[in-house]
Amino acid sequence: MTNILYITASARKDGSLSRMLGDRFVNGWTRRDGSGDVVRRDVGTNPPPIISQDWIAAAFTPGAERTGAQKEMLALSDQLISEVSRADMIVIATPMYNYGMPGALKAWVDQVVRVNETFTFDLARGDYPLEPVLSGKTLVLLTSSGEFGFAQGEAREEMGHLIPHLKTVSKYLGAEQIHSVSIEYQEFGDARHDQSIATAKEQVDELLKGLAQGRARALA
Amino acid sequence: MTNILYITASARKDGSLSRMLGDRFVNGWTRRDGSGDVVRRDVGTNPPPIISQDWIAAAFTPGAERTGAQKEMLALSDQLISEVSRADMIVIATPMYNYGMPGALKAWVDQVVRVNETFTFDLARGDYPLEPVLSGKTLVLLTSSGEFGFAQGEAREEMGHLIPHLKTVSKYLGAEQIHSVSIEYQEFGDARHDQSIATAKEQVDELLKGLAQGRARALA
Repeated sequence: MTNILYITASARKDGSLSRMLGDRFVNGWTRRDGSGDVVRRDVGTNPPPIISQDWIAAAFTPGAERTGAQKEMLALSDQLISEVSRADMIVIATPMYNYGMPGALKAWVDQVVRVNETFTFDLARGDYPLEPVLSGKTLVLLTSSGEFGFAQGEAREEMGHLIPHLKTVSKYLGAEQIHSVSIEYQEFGDARHDQSIATAKEQVDELLKGLAQGRARALA
Repeated sequence: MTNILYITASARKDGSLSRMLGDRFVNGWTRRDGSGDVVRRDVGTNPPPIISQDWIAAAFTPGAERTGAQKEMLALSDQLISEVSRADMIVIATPMYNYGMPGALKAWVDQVVRVNETFTFDLARGDYPLEPVLSGKTLVLLTSSGEFGFAQGEAREEMGHLIPHLKTVSKYLGAEQIHSVSIEYQEFGDARHDQSIATAKEQVDELLKGLAQGRARALA
């Protein structure tokens, strides 16, 4: 049984390629597996609030000492964290906006990475005082970008802050294996874009097969 | 005469180290120079809305063809862009949240980087179809982080997505020179943190002198 948390971050409902890849993956998985829940969290059309000074104060107040207003301030964060916590597999379908995460997805990350919930902090650990609470999850990143060449060793590697940043924060989502499939060239609308879509669809299908057989190759 | 746009992105009003550095820089500048305006844009306590499907549709509709609702949808973006456009120097004071920009600052970036306003798009340019509209500006990044070692060649370089990402998008803010000063070790609260604050204050003062004398060293 595999519980999936399926996060979509595109502002667009229509014509979103990241949603197309995400739907292909999640529908393909449930067709194969069938068991388990799929929780859908559409931050693209329903962005979580940006965290505030009061949110930070509430998060750093020990649970037992929180006021009613502070508990309410954290209610959505609690909900988002419980969705991450319950998932065996987290699927994030997101476009690259301005070379990184959409503001909506970063708003979600800022609500989810929280002391004593998704990480613990202890100075006794020395120079690396943070440790993740969650573990053992698989993270699937399905992305689309208007330009191209953001992968390692490619022309725009230095400009690509979407997947590297998600890899960094994935530790606090409990991700131990990360897989990614990307569509590129969207704003060129040319044969390379068509090819990129076709290849990405094949890669999603391969990834589904590989995950089912326990042989999918994870990102380094 | 130097017009400054001063952007603050910390959710916190009290105890924000990035605001402290930003205030030190901006107050120092205006004491020395005096001429020019300072426009303050506090996205940390007043985050711009996350862009939506309707926002994107409005932005890609030619100005003359926009409906009243579309113009209204873009009114804040127009305002934020005119603030960038009028500035000779952009000062961004921001904390690192979860290894990158706070959601609030990314929401601002997504409102400001806009076709035909801050960049033009032309496939006749080949594989690099985007060009910035603005130019000649100086960007000053004043940051603070809980951990340390995010600079090039340091222990957490691979995890540091704040300054590299801002450098990438700075092209579309018209930034041709970038300077940065960072406070680190905030969550350790130890002597290294005190030293980091003292050093950053000195670096801000040096930067002010260097900029006034036209000899400040910019980031590569």
